[in-house]
Amino acid sequence: MASSLFFLRATKLYHSHSRLLIVVATVSTGGGTLAYTSYADSRSIVDDVPKKKVVVLGTGWGGTSFVKNLKNSAYDVQVVSPRNYFAFTPLLPSVTCGTVEARSIVEPIRNIAKKKNVRVEFEEAECYKIDPINKKVYCRSAQNKILEGKEEFTVDYDYLVVAMGARSNTFNTPGVEENCHFLKEIEDAQRIRTTVVDCFEKASLPHLSEEHRRKLLQFVIVGGGPTGVEFAAELHDFVTEDLSKLYPSLKPLVNITLVEAGDHILNMFDKRITDFAEKKFQRDGIDVRLGAMVTKVTSKEISTKDRASGDLKSLPYGMVVWSTGIGTRPVVMEFMKQIGQTNRRALSTDEWLRVEGTNCIYALGDCATIQQRKVMEDIEAIIKKADKDNSGTLNVKELKKVINDISERYPQIEIYMKRKQFKDIVELIKSVQGNDEKQESTQIDIASFKKSLSEVDAQMKNLPATAQVAAQQGAYLADCFNRMEDCDLNPEGPLRTRKEGRHRFRPFRYKHFGQFAPLGGEQTAAQLPGDYVIYGHSTQWLWYSVYASKLVSWRTRMLVVSDWMRRFIFGRDSSRL
Amino acid sequence: MASSLFFLRATKLYHSHSRLLIVVATVSTGGGTLAYTSYADSRSIVDDVPKKKVVVLGTGWGGTSFVKNLKNSAYDVQVVSPRNYFAFTPLLPSVTCGTVEARSIVEPIRNIAKKKNVRVEFEEAECYKIDPINKKVYCRSAQNKILEGKEEFTVDYDYLVVAMGARSNTFNTPGVEENCHFLKEIEDAQRIRTTVVDCFEKASLPHLSEEHRRKLLQFVIVGGGPTGVEFAAELHDFVTEDLSKLYPSLKPLVNITLVEAGDHILNMFDKRITDFAEKKFQRDGIDVRLGAMVTKVTSKEISTKDRASGDLKSLPYGMVVWSTGIGTRPVVMEFMKQIGQTNRRALSTDEWLRVEGTNCIYALGDCATIQQRKVMEDIEAIIKKADKDNSGTLNVKELKKVINDISERYPQIEIYMKRKQFKDIVELIKSVQGNDEKQESTQIDIASFKKSLSEVDAQMKNLPATAQVAAQQGAYLADCFNRMEDCDLNPEGPLRTRKEGRHRFRPFRYKHFGQFAPLGGEQTAAQLPGDYVIYGHSTQWLWYSVYASKLVSWRTRMLVVSDWMRRFIFGRDSSRL
Repeated sequence: MASSLFFLRATKLYHSHSRLLIVVATVSTGGGTLAYTSYADSRSIVDDVPKKKVVVLGTGWGGTSFVKNLKNSAYDVQVVSPRNYFAFTPLLPSVTCGTVEARSIVEPIRNIAKKKNVRVEFEEAECYKIDPINKKVYCRSAQNKILEGKEEFTVDYDYLVVAMGARSNTFNTPGVEENCHFLKEIEDAQRIRTTVVDCFEKASLPHLSEEHRRKLLQFVIVGGGPTGVEFAAELHDFVTEDLSKLYPSLKPLVNITLVEAGDHILNMFDKRITDFAEKKFQRDGIDVRLGAMVTKVTSKEISTKDRASGDLKSLPYGMVVWSTGIGTRPVVMEFMKQIGQTNRRALSTDEWLRVEGTNCIYALGDCATIQQRKVMEDIEAIIKKADKDNSGTLNVKELKKVINDISERYPQIEIYMKRKQFKDIVELIKSVQGNDEKQESTQIDIASFKKSLSEVDAQMKNLPATAQVAAQQGAYLADCFNRMEDCDLNPEGPLRTRKEGRHRFRPFRYKHFGQFAPLGGEQTAAQLPGDYVIYGHSTQWLWYSVYASKLVSWRTRMLVVSDWMRRFIFGRDSSRL
Repeated sequence: MASSLFFLRATKLYHSHSRLLIVVATVSTGGGTLAYTSYADSRSIVDDVPKKKVVVLGTGWGGTSFVKNLKNSAYDVQVVSPRNYFAFTPLLPSVTCGTVEARSIVEPIRNIAKKKNVRVEFEEAECYKIDPINKKVYCRSAQNKILEGKEEFTVDYDYLVVAMGARSNTFNTPGVEENCHFLKEIEDAQRIRTTVVDCFEKASLPHLSEEHRRKLLQFVIVGGGPTGVEFAAELHDFVTEDLSKLYPSLKPLVNITLVEAGDHILNMFDKRITDFAEKKFQRDGIDVRLGAMVTKVTSKEISTKDRASGDLKSLPYGMVVWSTGIGTRPVVMEFMKQIGQTNRRALSTDEWLRVEGTNCIYALGDCATIQQRKVMEDIEAIIKKADKDNSGTLNVKELKKVINDISERYPQIEIYMKRKQFKDIVELIKSVQGNDEKQESTQIDIASFKKSLSEVDAQMKNLPATAQVAAQQGAYLADCFNRMEDCDLNPEGPLRTRKEGRHRFRPFRYKHFGQFAPLGGEQTAAQLPGDYVIYGHSTQWLWYSVYASKLVSWRTRMLVVSDWMRRFIFGRDSSRL
């Protein structure tokens, strides 16, 4: 009764304040109600200028970020993806154990798309072939049961944005595809959740030997990266905080094993974080096996080989989750073959995200990798460009004039100088030439200059396959499309080294905002830009607040926060759904 | 930023007030934290008296209500069910369209069971055979993939409670099993939700004819009972309130058709409600086809036959939901054969829920039906019992002495008298005998007495297959088990008509608390006891508050209320999950 009274009162409140709520929503989503109107308008006005058609493949971080940031009404956008929603993937490990519900971290792409002044259409279909010659993509309806006959169709494009992501990489290990769970999609997380409960229910059946129960409760995670580590931590929390209350007799039989081929888990993080994580896992009783390669997975056992000693081991398991890096999707692989990009992990693009060897095709996110141009390839052209007076020699003054453009075009120079703690290019040259003069007329010894730059290219690293990178690339590309006409007239990029004039746009630059590694028990390690490292209890709150503020929409933000609240109060649900 | 600040403050508040929260929870669940302790105690004490083993088959309304209400520690309980949770099924239609999330209406059975002083074990398995002779049930693990070899096991019982529910009844209509959705389980509701979104996504694909789009957006519901009607209403709301915003061009192509073989929808309700519902549906544009029998369902079309005219019609469809009454589960059918109950819809029990022809087996809920004993079968014995002085005649005084016991044993007498508006048995007799005397010594004409009761048995009706009935039966049976020893010594039931003494317990009596039929657009019709009928806008709030107060646990209550809130603010999610 108390509850229903409360509810009635709350709904009354809702009704009397609904205007207020709508106003708040309008302000916070950047014009929720306004957006409807403008969307309707954009549909009804007769277009006099023929619009360019942009086709976006994929609704992950890259594609969604692109669609969200595109504001130029000179384009018609068509999004093709087998998923009609965007998923906030950093919370996927939380979905595996019900800390957060699957629906709380997804947002229909149509919802994201309609909040804009640009006409965006969406097709729930899978692209299975790209035809760059006829500017066409071939698609297939994602669910083909009730759609007879017309399952396949083609879409023409003027510009194509490939943002199809990657798939899990099994490194061709036998049995992985058939017997392991992956953790890339929402459905994967839901299946893992069901399987964990299944293992506990199975192990509760009567007449089983203790050995059999132990086997069913042996959880193996392969891969000590952030996803694997976070899943191991979530699973440990789920078992100790929730399942142990419902299955008290099974608690001592549970074992969580994390298998990592490298020497440490979280090896892309600072050493302090790695140490902290390994010690935390040891205290929690999570069995971390370092330097162990998986050689085979059968339906009953997982086999590993110690990299150092060559020892072979077998472990019977209840569930294996495979989380070790990414591989190329077949359709991307096929497209790479077509355009002559063979022997690569992903679509190779230039610094403006244009796919090499194609026209009007862009690629971003996990399916792409930026091929940064090397300084040494262009060194002669650079020197020639800097030598304004065509004297055949370079002085400091001449070099200073072009250095900004050059560092923009070749960011590895800046990274190198930062690492060596040089203040500017003069110090870099000085370090090689060895003299102390800084006068602008000082002649630069070209041979030494070349030598000073020779180490620079080694600084280039591929960007990590993370949500941050893809989201920044999507936003960057949308910004380029938004200002396409302006920048055609007033190019804003760096000087061209081999031709006259400037590049139309500044090249893409990744800005690292740090990374979190939740370790369970409300502890999180965070590596922030500028080499700051924090870990421990309070960090979890930072993590919560950063993620809550980053979620796609106010809807998902509220849902995730309320899921967290629910979990605090009621724990995680273990119904087998 | 604002959101994260709010969140941090809220969590601080949570932490400083967590003690308060726990206290509130303790009071409201009737001793949440206390229950843990007593559960642990009951596990650790050494039992000196051997306990009787009660096996409960099923975790639906009947089984769960029984387990929840059983308090007598003289029993060990073992629950066997393929579902490790209890689902609050009246909200299933809401799950189909995401008004409420599936997880919000389920509660793990282990959670329900552990709050008691009785040892309750649970096995996630399906019972496939009952052996009443050896007092054994045969079970099979519900998921058999990872459990090799020992998939099957048996469980012995002293008492067996069969509460396995029913399955959907296709009336052997060809193609229904293969092509239609049902709406009995949580998974059914989830599948329907996905299929609705699928239909919209399919219909959005390019190059389809308008006819094809219309076909994909043709939703057919078969069965005009409360479930079918509520689903039609939910679907209509989902389409008009949410999907029409995301798929504006498809809105005019959607068609919802409700097919009912009878003359009216909701025919178990008052005529006023039926009228109101039919008019509301007409205004909403839901196409109600009355008197139409479904003859066949293919993968493309559903065929109907008009009962009056015999006209045959075919309707191409996108999705069909079949919701027309219940049928017997195969395992129950098999058990009925074993115990000689053939040609019946469900397990026949006596008024104490004991399965006829068995020993120590009880059945309740949708899989059972109470075989009320007829007055006319026992009339001679009743007269003999009433004739205390063995005079061979009956007077009013003698009859009055036994009438309470008789009406308790044969509730149809009371129903009959209520309907005829007789105040007591004397008026009943008077109506037949025709004299006005009420003196206690008045002799009763036995032939007339028999005649007066002859119409009574026709009043007997089977109880409806509803959650209310099953829940009341479960609570009744648990109460009997709780007081088994007491009532062995002091029987509290009515006088036995054919033997000496009294029955041990009062027979089960169903108390109808009314029924709701949500009609969409926040309108609900309600039929309350005593022939009260309400419908219209405000009723939805009554429905919400009644259901919120009835949900299994505080957890589910809070989740459902917060789901309703979410829906008010953000609408329903249409991501294809």
